[in-house]
Amino acid sequence: MPVADDIKSMIQNASFIRKMFETGARLKEKFGQENVLDFTLGNPDLEPPKKFQITLRKIVNQKIPLKHGYISNAGLTETRKVVAEKVSCEQHIKISFENIIMTCGAGGGLNVVFKTILNRGDNVIINAPYFVEYGFYINNHGGEISIVNTKSDFNLDIDAIEKKINHKTCAILINSPNNPTGKVYPQTTIKKLCNMLKEKSKKINRAIYLVSDEPYRKIVYDNIKVPSIFEFYSNSIIVTSFSKDLSIPGERLGYIAVHPKADDLRNLIDGMILCNRILGFVNAPVLMQRVIKEIPDACVDIKRYQRRRDLLCSNLKKIGYNFILPEGAFYLFPKAPNGDDIEFVNILREKLVLAVPGTGFGCSGYFRLAYCVPENTIKRAMPILEEVIKKFKK
Amino acid sequence: MPVADDIKSMIQNASFIRKMFETGARLKEKFGQENVLDFTLGNPDLEPPKKFQITLRKIVNQKIPLKHGYISNAGLTETRKVVAEKVSCEQHIKISFENIIMTCGAGGGLNVVFKTILNRGDNVIINAPYFVEYGFYINNHGGEISIVNTKSDFNLDIDAIEKKINHKTCAILINSPNNPTGKVYPQTTIKKLCNMLKEKSKKINRAIYLVSDEPYRKIVYDNIKVPSIFEFYSNSIIVTSFSKDLSIPGERLGYIAVHPKADDLRNLIDGMILCNRILGFVNAPVLMQRVIKEIPDACVDIKRYQRRRDLLCSNLKKIGYNFILPEGAFYLFPKAPNGDDIEFVNILREKLVLAVPGTGFGCSGYFRLAYCVPENTIKRAMPILEEVIKKFKK
Repeated sequence: MPVADDIKSMIQNASFIRKMFETGARLKEKFGQENVLDFTLGNPDLEPPKKFQITLRKIVNQKIPLKHGYISNAGLTETRKVVAEKVSCEQHIKISFENIIMTCGAGGGLNVVFKTILNRGDNVIINAPYFVEYGFYINNHGGEISIVNTKSDFNLDIDAIEKKINHKTCAILINSPNNPTGKVYPQTTIKKLCNMLKEKSKKINRAIYLVSDEPYRKIVYDNIKVPSIFEFYSNSIIVTSFSKDLSIPGERLGYIAVHPKADDLRNLIDGMILCNRILGFVNAPVLMQRVIKEIPDACVDIKRYQRRRDLLCSNLKKIGYNFILPEGAFYLFPKAPNGDDIEFVNILREKLVLAVPGTGFGCSGYFRLAYCVPENTIKRAMPILEEVIKKFKK
Repeated sequence: MPVADDIKSMIQNASFIRKMFETGARLKEKFGQENVLDFTLGNPDLEPPKKFQITLRKIVNQKIPLKHGYISNAGLTETRKVVAEKVSCEQHIKISFENIIMTCGAGGGLNVVFKTILNRGDNVIINAPYFVEYGFYINNHGGEISIVNTKSDFNLDIDAIEKKINHKTCAILINSPNNPTGKVYPQTTIKKLCNMLKEKSKKINRAIYLVSDEPYRKIVYDNIKVPSIFEFYSNSIIVTSFSKDLSIPGERLGYIAVHPKADDLRNLIDGMILCNRILGFVNAPVLMQRVIKEIPDACVDIKRYQRRRDLLCSNLKKIGYNFILPEGAFYLFPKAPNGDDIEFVNILREKLVLAVPGTGFGCSGYFRLAYCVPENTIKRAMPILEEVIKKFKK
């Protein structure tokens, strides 16, 4: 038994998605990179903002003692301070730097959170469609996922969530703006969710955490605002990253923000700092922390993503695709016109357009297009998407 | 229950070491940073090599598409290739880039390895004194530690290891050059260990991995060589980092190298790449991978560590401390002259010299001095260490 049983079965289960990627790679090799229209990856293609590049250069050239050395497991105090100010602004509640823990991206942050709060056999409620990694992040630390479907407009179904909560429920995980739907949960929904959680926590006599994964908070369209979580619920934890704001996902920088009135706050934060250390992250990459300290609010040009969304959505609408207009992030989640997402994605792939079936997000019958791609890729895909949908309309 | 039970108990257990650090911090505040002689931290104080600094500047100024974007979970192919060449050289066996996985330091790498190979209830043999984080890295993924004491010269006790192996033994973890003792296991010991493991694997009919944590491989003295592991045992896995070679521990870059003839190699490597992803590391920080690609062999000036070792050891010997001369790393692990390491470290602390009791490494009766500090700190500590030992010699 050279590999753990659960890992072996994960490798086998992952083979479907891997095969998809491998086929994509083969197609690119065969027909040329430029002839394959790849909408599968959430890898932002915009360059990092000028501010980021200038600040990085400056810091690399500066003399700073132990510039690349170990730092506190929670992060550089100065970085945590500017992040705390940013979160205070976004959440309309004063946050101290002590409530911020710098992490290895949001993925690292979520692992730290779940390792800290989950006892073996606890469950975490997640809302389908969902980012498939959530299941792993929860299972890694002895937790189980409990899936609730969102409504037809991809908004949270609070009644369904309420029914799923039991005495083993440790947390509910939300993601807004959402991957894969682009949905932003409105303030009324957040309030309703928080009120329900307050009541339910009392009833089952345990803290139910609201964990909000929000790496796309800044990537929103039509002047929409992502509502505060902290305003409405004290047992809440925000996990996010600079990956999308700054187009630096490969550098792995994010943070956890804990509500200042969360139950047993000191242990919660000490636990997260401990878990950041013992999971082997030790500290979030230090050079990037030095950069962020100076430019906490820098952001790529969101208008460019908006133009792509508009181009993609207006065209797909014309051709007859059925979808909810994304309010944020850079994903569109239309219905597969034939009803079978895996078959539909296969048909697209034969025509050198790559997409991910909704099944990969716990939601069959849909497919995901990541539009963090050049406008020209979108334009070139349109005739193909039109040709394909026509087949099913006859 | 806002925090998981096991995490809460870890926080409480960690409070001893935390208190020590907090006391140290208070002393520095009270008496001035420069008046407290701190030998507790393995945070290398040498600047990164010039080559590193020049290459980092060059890459930051270069135009590279998606320079900071997501990359393959296993790392940049080009980086893996140069690392594979480096490992091939060190291990005297040809390694392909496919056997290399870039990780978030050695700490991240060890978590990835143990998540990949451990089934719940499996045990991993570790050799005391040992780096205290090992226990966490193993427990994180459902494993249990099984401790074997090293011999009086801190060399591995192969017979004792053999006796500890049972049908639940998944791996043995070694660390050479060693933290906290500075011991480098000689080739004869490695050979003997590997032969024993081959026999035992057959007997218990399972692969027993030899996991070699070797972040100090390049930090060795008196022209000593750290022997190859791969030459003698195919189920072996090397985990290491650039933290000490380059004095960049805060940047979190390391790698795993898997023996090309390990059992079920494909699953083992696929499992590690999967675990690197799902534990939230996703990929090792990409900018640092781009730097390493160009300077895989760069290293800080080891002679400076050697001068400190010589200064510290020759003086401590004169004053009457009892220790094994470190052959590598930057730690010394002398006997506490009073026999009680915690009391002894407390006495030193009253005199503003900070050390870590051996109890923190599973080995009471000793204390650890990290000599990655300026020579002057060593010189100033000598009269105090002399004064203290005199008390116990009367």
